Amino acid sequence: MFNSFNPEKTSEKISDFLKKETRERGFTKVINALSGGIDSTVVTYLAAKALQPTNVLITTLPYKNLNDQGLQDAQEVITTLNIPKTNVFHINIGSICDRFFANDPKIDDLRKGNIMARVRMTILYDLAKKERALVLGAENKSEYLLGYFTRYGDEAADLDPIRDLYKTEVRILAKYLGVPDRIVSKAPAAGLWEGQTDEGQFGFTYEDADKILYLLFDRKLTPSEMVKKGFKKEVVEKVYSWVKTNDFKHHLPKVANE
Amino acid sequence: MFNSFNPEKTSEKISDFLKKETRERGFTKVINALSGGIDSTVVTYLAAKALQPTNVLITTLPYKNLNDQGLQDAQEVITTLNIPKTNVFHINIGSICDRFFANDPKIDDLRKGNIMARVRMTILYDLAKKERALVLGAENKSEYLLGYFTRYGDEAADLDPIRDLYKTEVRILAKYLGVPDRIVSKAPAAGLWEGQTDEGQFGFTYEDADKILYLLFDRKLTPSEMVKKGFKKEVVEKVYSWVKTNDFKHHLPKVANE
Repeated sequence: MFNSFNPEKTSEKISDFLKKETRERGFTKVINALSGGIDSTVVTYLAAKALQPTNVLITTLPYKNLNDQGLQDAQEVITTLNIPKTNVFHINIGSICDRFFANDPKIDDLRKGNIMARVRMTILYDLAKKERALVLGAENKSEYLLGYFTRYGDEAADLDPIRDLYKTEVRILAKYLGVPDRIVSKAPAAGLWEGQTDEGQFGFTYEDADKILYLLFDRKLTPSEMVKKGFKKEVVEKVYSWVKTNDFKHHLPKVANE
Repeated sequence: MFNSFNPEKTSEKISDFLKKETRERGFTKVINALSGGIDSTVVTYLAAKALQPTNVLITTLPYKNLNDQGLQDAQEVITTLNIPKTNVFHINIGSICDRFFANDPKIDDLRKGNIMARVRMTILYDLAKKERALVLGAENKSEYLLGYFTRYGDEAADLDPIRDLYKTEVRILAKYLGVPDRIVSKAPAAGLWEGQTDEGQFGFTYEDADKILYLLFDRKLTPSEMVKKGFKKEVVEKVYSWVKTNDFKHHLPKVANE
């Protein structure tokens, strides 16, 4: 079903989008938070291609040593794309986050993860203001539809280059762009706590989810129609439950009297 | 021109909105950040009226001792409305913000203010998650149209009870609700730095701005038509400049390929 996806055309289209939007808004630079995961790596590749590496600013925002491999991968991306060292801001969010966590000794991993995402947003937007750069988001369509993001955290962006691409499509695009294999094939993780993976939290794979999300949103099939088509009831129900439970994240603040 | 504003009807309407929205979303509690300024105070009065004081959670989020009078005013509101002590979370954002500021010795007041607004959002949403409460925003229509807010900061909310009311109308509503005179009459300030006032930053008063914003947005007049009607050119141009400069704040992230 994603057979028709053309990474070359998509890459051109996103590149044109980035050029046009930065120019029209009176900017020359963009900035994004690079975790070393596939999504932020693809965004960095696309930005470097569209705007030249000298106009791409990067911040790596690790929490302590939680994801050292990610940081190494980020460094490899920066070097490979010839992004100048002076464009890169390494800021460890460990001590800031711990100050937040100290407000409540009973804080759990989910709340910690939300705080980490919002601390990253705060630093990213501060750097963007300082450097006069537009913020690029790294959200993809699968995460967006599943509601797998922190509101006012990792969803915050001025431009979203890959939010219309399913994770499956991001993987095809990554290979086309020449993203290192290790980055393409490692288990997707939001970097929120030790051992956390997206698919572990979901209870299904992105590959399965994408097929179901596609039928649900692009083809407007109901869950029971998918089960009739041969999809596993349990997986369809889990995906559907994520979509419904997090639907509220897509709504703006509701205003009285309007 | 705001003569037709009916505080009694508006109060009822917003009260119904708060009851309906909390019920429909499966919540009983709401939370808001109370600075002791008129906007957050009016929101607190409306919430206590609509949902009972026991269902209203409050957080005061001062930066060090920047606005001690505001904190005292907040305390008076809490006492007057019989909001239980266990519903109130006093958290000083001083040490957290200073950790952010330390990332750049050259940071200016504007960037500090944005960080403070985002730190407040992060704590407010963490408390909301912990306490299972909906977040009430305190933005009014004047601030919204002028773009006088921090994206992903003080604009973040689940429900916005007063965002359809001009500041002039919020003042009338405050008096109707019995908000203490000192809170109604003090100079509006976002609490971002010592001596900061909204009107000092604008270079015009809310009273003047509201008339111009009303003609611009509700009556669709152009700036030159307003000048012909007798408005001071200088003030019209200043207000219009705020509106235009900050217009980008009202747009969602732009998505490639959509």
